[in-house]
Amino acid sequence: MKYSAPRGTVDILPDASGKWEKLERILRTIASNYHVKEMRTPIFEHTELFNRAVGDTTDVVTKEMYTFEDKKGRSITLRPEGTAGIARAYVENKMYALPEKLTKVFYMGPMFRYERPQSGRQRQFHQFGVEMLGVESPYVDVECMMMAITVVKALGLENVTLHINSLGDEESRDAYRKALQDHFRPVLSDLCEDCNARFEKNPLRILDCKVDAKHEAMKTAPKTIDYLSESAKAHFDKVCALLDDLEVDYVIDTNLVRGLDYYSHTVFEIISDDPKLGAGATVGGGGRYNGLVEEIGGPATPGVGFAFGLERLMIALNDNEDDDEGIDAYIMPLGEEARDLGMQISAVLRANGFSVDMDYAGRGFKGQFKSADRFKATYSLLLGEDEVKGEYVNIRDNKTKEQEQVPFEDIVSYLEKGLGL
Amino acid sequence: MKYSAPRGTVDILPDASGKWEKLERILRTIASNYHVKEMRTPIFEHTELFNRAVGDTTDVVTKEMYTFEDKKGRSITLRPEGTAGIARAYVENKMYALPEKLTKVFYMGPMFRYERPQSGRQRQFHQFGVEMLGVESPYVDVECMMMAITVVKALGLENVTLHINSLGDEESRDAYRKALQDHFRPVLSDLCEDCNARFEKNPLRILDCKVDAKHEAMKTAPKTIDYLSESAKAHFDKVCALLDDLEVDYVIDTNLVRGLDYYSHTVFEIISDDPKLGAGATVGGGGRYNGLVEEIGGPATPGVGFAFGLERLMIALNDNEDDDEGIDAYIMPLGEEARDLGMQISAVLRANGFSVDMDYAGRGFKGQFKSADRFKATYSLLLGEDEVKGEYVNIRDNKTKEQEQVPFEDIVSYLEKGLGL
Repeated sequence: MKYSAPRGTVDILPDASGKWEKLERILRTIASNYHVKEMRTPIFEHTELFNRAVGDTTDVVTKEMYTFEDKKGRSITLRPEGTAGIARAYVENKMYALPEKLTKVFYMGPMFRYERPQSGRQRQFHQFGVEMLGVESPYVDVECMMMAITVVKALGLENVTLHINSLGDEESRDAYRKALQDHFRPVLSDLCEDCNARFEKNPLRILDCKVDAKHEAMKTAPKTIDYLSESAKAHFDKVCALLDDLEVDYVIDTNLVRGLDYYSHTVFEIISDDPKLGAGATVGGGGRYNGLVEEIGGPATPGVGFAFGLERLMIALNDNEDDDEGIDAYIMPLGEEARDLGMQISAVLRANGFSVDMDYAGRGFKGQFKSADRFKATYSLLLGEDEVKGEYVNIRDNKTKEQEQVPFEDIVSYLEKGLGL
Repeated sequence: MKYSAPRGTVDILPDASGKWEKLERILRTIASNYHVKEMRTPIFEHTELFNRAVGDTTDVVTKEMYTFEDKKGRSITLRPEGTAGIARAYVENKMYALPEKLTKVFYMGPMFRYERPQSGRQRQFHQFGVEMLGVESPYVDVECMMMAITVVKALGLENVTLHINSLGDEESRDAYRKALQDHFRPVLSDLCEDCNARFEKNPLRILDCKVDAKHEAMKTAPKTIDYLSESAKAHFDKVCALLDDLEVDYVIDTNLVRGLDYYSHTVFEIISDDPKLGAGATVGGGGRYNGLVEEIGGPATPGVGFAFGLERLMIALNDNEDDDEGIDAYIMPLGEEARDLGMQISAVLRANGFSVDMDYAGRGFKGQFKSADRFKATYSLLLGEDEVKGEYVNIRDNKTKEQEQVPFEDIVSYLEKGLGL
C-alpha cells in the first residue's frame, strides 16, 4: 500500500525549505523593527470560538472548517485563521491588564480550511499575521499598514498599492446596514439563496457574493464611507492624512469589504500588479476590529491587524536566487580506517562551528567529488591510505582546485583562515 | 461567554516566545553544521499511515490519536510523531531515487497526543527530529547520536549520558521474540490484560508496560543483545567502537526498548542528571528503523533518526537569561503635531533597519519613559513643542541619561554611530 499526503496539503522538501526559512527570517526581522513580538496559540481551538469570533454567517465558519469531536465529545476545530486565537489568548491571559496598554504581536504558522484545492489555495496553508490590541488610534491603523507595506516591499514586489476603506463605528454600520437593505430589497428575488439569508443577518456580506457579483444592483450599491458618523469620519480622515504625510501610494476603494464579521473602521488590502502574481492580485490585508475582544468575553478593546498568506509571499520571493550557501567542508575518506578518522575530524570541525558532511556510502573519490559539488562544499578533505599513514589530509579548494597537505592538528586553523573567520 | 485554550494546549505569550525562537535558532544552527536540511510535512495525515508506521499495538495508535473524519468521510489524524510523515513524503516524492543516496532531514513543529495532561506533557507538544535515510551504516547511527548529543550540550545540560542498545535485525528479533515468549509464558496469568495481548502480537512491548513494571519476571527477562545475529552484532560493535574513538560517554543499557514498532538495530536515549530536569531524565532518543519505508510501500530503505521534545529542551534552556535585546529607539511625542512627525521619523528609522517603537496612547513624558524602560530602548527620542518648532529631536541615551539635540536629518547617522553600526 502506498500513502499520499492528504488532499490540499503539500510537503516542503529539503531543497525548498531554505526559501521558506528565508521568508520567515525576513518577516521576523521586520517584526523586530516594528517591535512586534511573536505569540503562539494552539493549532486547534474550541469550535464555538470561531463561530463567535469569525462569525457564523461567514463561508469560513459555515462551510470550510475542519471540525471534529475529541474523545470527551468536545467540539474542536483546526484554526481557519489566526486572529480569533490571539484574541482568545489575549483575554484568557488578561493581557489587557498589562502595564503596556498597546500589545503588538505577530503569529506565523499553519491554518486550515476545507476548500476545493486549486492553484495557490491549499487546505493547509500558512499565514503571517499581526495584531495590535488595546489602543484606539488612527496612528496604530497606519503603523499596521506601514508594516504590511514594508513586508511586501522587502520581498521585492513591484507596483504595490494600498487599498483602504472605512466601515465606520457601530453607529455608521447601523446606518449603512439600513441603506443596504433599502437598496437590495427591491431586487431580492433576483439574488441567490445565500444573499437572501445574508439580507437579514448581515447585508454587508451580499457585496462579497461571488454568484451575484455581476448583478446591476451591486454596482450601484451605497458606499460605507457615505454613512460614517462624525467620529468615524475623523478617524478615517486622520488615517488618510498620515498616509499622505508618509507618501504612501494608496487609493480609497469603496468596494472593499473584508470577508470576516469583526471588522470596523479601517479595512485595507495590498494589491500588486507584479507580473509574478498577476495583475491586481491581493497580497494581504486586514483592518480594525474593535468589537472582537468584547464579543468573546473580554473587556471592550480596540484592535487592528493584518494577515498575509505565506504561499503567496513565497511566489513573490521566488527570485530564482540559489539560497543554498553550501557547506564548509566535505570529508572524503577511502577505506574504514580513513572513515573512522573522518568521523573524528567531522566532530572536531562541527564543534568549531563549521558545517561539515562526509561520505557514509563507502564510494570511491569519483562519486564523492560529485557529492562535494552537489553540496557546494568550499573545501574537500581527502583522506586516503597515504594521508592516514602520514596523519594529514589533502585539503582541496573546490573553487581554485588547488590542493594542500594539512596535518590533522592544523585543519581547524587552516579552514578558519581560508573561510576568513 | 469566556473561552479558554483547549485542555492540554498552551499559549506562548510575547514575553516567552523569544526563548522559543532562541531554541529554534540553536537547533537550526546545529542542523546546518551537520548538513541536515529541513523538511516540512502536513499537520495531519491519513490515519492508516500511523496505524501502519507507528504500529497498531502501540499506545500512541490505540489510545492517543486525534482522529477524525473530514467532510468526505476520509479518516484523518493529527500527527502524533514526526517520522511517519517524513517517511511517507520520502516515498511519495521518490526521494530514494535522488542522486545523493543519503537523505538527512530535520523537522520541527507541533505533534498531538490525547493523553492526560500533566507537568511537561501536553496534548499539543512540539518536537525537533532528525531522520537519515538511504544508507545502512553504523557511521550514520553514530552521526545521528553525535548530533543529538551536540543539541543537548549546546543547551548547557550537564551530566549527560548516552544510553544505547541494539534490537538487531529481523533474524535477531525473531530469536529474541521466541526467547521472550518462553520467558513470560509461565507467568502470563500474573500479567495485565494489555501484556497478554502483547504476548502474541509484540512481546517486546511487555518490557515497556507500566502496570507490570515491578513484576519479578521483568528483571530477569532475556536481553536483546544476547540474541543478535552475527551481522547485527558486528553493526553494534562498530557503533560502540566509533563512540569509543569519539570519547563519548555512553552506557549499554540492555533494558532500552523504544516504544514504537519500527525500530531495529541501534536504539538510544540521552539521559541527563541535570538538576533542571531531575535525576535520570530522558531528554530525547531515537534509533534505526530499517523496515519502516518498505512497510509503507517504498523500496527497502535503511533509516535512523531521533527526536527531542521541545518543551523539555526549553526547560534545559531556561537559564533565566534575559534574551530581550530591547529596541534601538523609542519615540516620545507630545501632542498631535509631534506624533505626526514621530510617525515619519519611525518610518525612516525602520527603513534604515532600526528597531523602533513609539507612544500611540497619547501619554505624557512620564508614562512614556516607563515604556522606554520596559522596552529596553537604547535611545529615547523626545519630541515636544520646542523640538517640533526647531526641527530637531532630543535624543536621550538611556544608559548614561545624557541628552543631545539632533536635527531631523541627522538622526539616522547619529543612531548609527551611537549603536556602532
